Amino acid sequence: MLYVGVDLGGTNIAAGLVSPDGKVLIQDSVPTGVGRSYQEILASMGSLINDLVKKSGYGMHDIEAVGIGSPGAADMDKGEIVFANNLYWYNVPICSELQKHVQKPVYVDNDANVAALAELAVGCAKGRKSLVLLTLGTGVGAGIVMDGKIVGGSHHVGAEIGHMIMDVNGEPCTCGNQGCFERYTSATALIRDGRHMALGYPDCLIMAKASGNLDNITAKIVIDAAREGDELAMAIFDKYVRYLALGIINIINILDPEVVALGGGVSKAGDFLLDKVRAVMNAHIFYKKLAHADIMLSPLGNDAGVIGAAMLAVSGRIA
Amino acid sequence: MLYVGVDLGGTNIAAGLVSPDGKVLIQDSVPTGVGRSYQEILASMGSLINDLVKKSGYGMHDIEAVGIGSPGAADMDKGEIVFANNLYWYNVPICSELQKHVQKPVYVDNDANVAALAELAVGCAKGRKSLVLLTLGTGVGAGIVMDGKIVGGSHHVGAEIGHMIMDVNGEPCTCGNQGCFERYTSATALIRDGRHMALGYPDCLIMAKASGNLDNITAKIVIDAAREGDELAMAIFDKYVRYLALGIINIINILDPEVVALGGGVSKAGDFLLDKVRAVMNAHIFYKKLAHADIMLSPLGNDAGVIGAAMLAVSGRIA
Repeated sequence: MLYVGVDLGGTNIAAGLVSPDGKVLIQDSVPTGVGRSYQEILASMGSLINDLVKKSGYGMHDIEAVGIGSPGAADMDKGEIVFANNLYWYNVPICSELQKHVQKPVYVDNDANVAALAELAVGCAKGRKSLVLLTLGTGVGAGIVMDGKIVGGSHHVGAEIGHMIMDVNGEPCTCGNQGCFERYTSATALIRDGRHMALGYPDCLIMAKASGNLDNITAKIVIDAAREGDELAMAIFDKYVRYLALGIINIINILDPEVVALGGGVSKAGDFLLDKVRAVMNAHIFYKKLAHADIMLSPLGNDAGVIGAAMLAVSGRIA
Repeated sequence: MLYVGVDLGGTNIAAGLVSPDGKVLIQDSVPTGVGRSYQEILASMGSLINDLVKKSGYGMHDIEAVGIGSPGAADMDKGEIVFANNLYWYNVPICSELQKHVQKPVYVDNDANVAALAELAVGCAKGRKSLVLLTLGTGVGAGIVMDGKIVGGSHHVGAEIGHMIMDVNGEPCTCGNQGCFERYTSATALIRDGRHMALGYPDCLIMAKASGNLDNITAKIVIDAAREGDELAMAIFDKYVRYLALGIINIINILDPEVVALGGGVSKAGDFLLDKVRAVMNAHIFYKKLAHADIMLSPLGNDAGVIGAAMLAVSGRIA
């Protein structure tokens, strides 16, 4: 049997046919069309799934269940999206609505949480039981799996580690608080600090790589400049690493997972990032003589969403 | 059947005979005698238990199992204390050693975690499934129970919420880091800030209540002065409340438990503390329109350790 994994995003809906061991056989996507009613968006999702199955050469009888990774707070038990800010959704019965178009069991959970499930099923934490996944992108997403199960919280508002306060008097955050983790550890933070540096030092390597245009500065440019040994870029990157490592220490001091995995755009910096994070962590970890979580890079990349959603359908099916 | 709950502390070992529904029938304590070998300390614990059963009028045949709440990192599965700083213990086989003196099943876990279990079994979160207990004392202890089970972590180093970094450039902590939660939310923090204030304002109410002696300043004095409306004391207490509320928001943003319970000396401030904490929380919570954890006072006080250890024996027995 096969499973459908759906990654519902603010821009696109991606869906894939996935084997029980997490191999994506075929996938496709359509625009989400945010602003439309949830009925319209889920009709699009239904068409995407039906078309994908048709195109795959398999039939609907080969599909066991559908899993959806959605932004926002998801109530897995009720099959509802309680709240999704960027879709303008409140209490959307996403599973029953999709079942009007796809007559299969449908499961839903938060997108970052299902991505964490994917890492545990087929990614860097394969065979482990607990993991925290940090997705270092425009913001910082987080998924928590403990004892093999997603920890979404009693009110479906957990795993918002991007808004863990690390500096009570620090950078203002979009959430209204100050000093949230993602203010320092997102790609956005590297861009902000890169621009600030380039304003002060217009002849710097970051500015050169951006062809003299502040708007061209990306997280990759800052990281590349740091990798080439540019001192100004290194200062930015070291600050980034410090906050990331101290945030991971907070995660360890609270949850003590087997693995902390880093995904998202910034994680493409690879060992250059990982080696520095581990060095800062080892200097600041609370129990210095005891074992702690392995820090790893997520190998799944963009596929984590589709695979994880399918794995949710697999575990939903088993449970 | 009855259960023995043992609260192993740095100063005393307390033990109680506890009914399955969490009532303490009789309890007693002996000095821990830190510095002695673990064999000697556990022999004292054994004598305490045997004497207590004798004194109670019950017999050893009435005792089902023994639970121990211990400081430090505990490996429940192995029945070991992996590391306990204030007992100078590394890899102590606490359960098998105690069984040389008390021939019953023995279970061990971290003291703050078993106290959290007590709150869930018979305290403020009775009937709930998840809770984080913060013990606001000399330091800040924390216990986490999710889905009815203690979350001690994969390497037994979790639930150290007192060392969650809230201000990366803040107050130096005993652990070597800066800005740990307990630097701002322990009784010690109130005493530190009270003394600092009294140094600057020798005529202040705090100093008056301390009979003009800085060494007499306690957390209670600072709280009492704030309760009486003294502006200097209120400034200290409001700072305390701000860090506590923001730390609770971090806990909610990560774990989203059903209940966050406040215990320890500072929690005796009661509703004066609770009302202020809730007000700051409501202004800063991430999902403002969704439900979140109830913030409650721990009703168990000092008994939480003994009751929780007994509840560990009950659940260990069931599992």
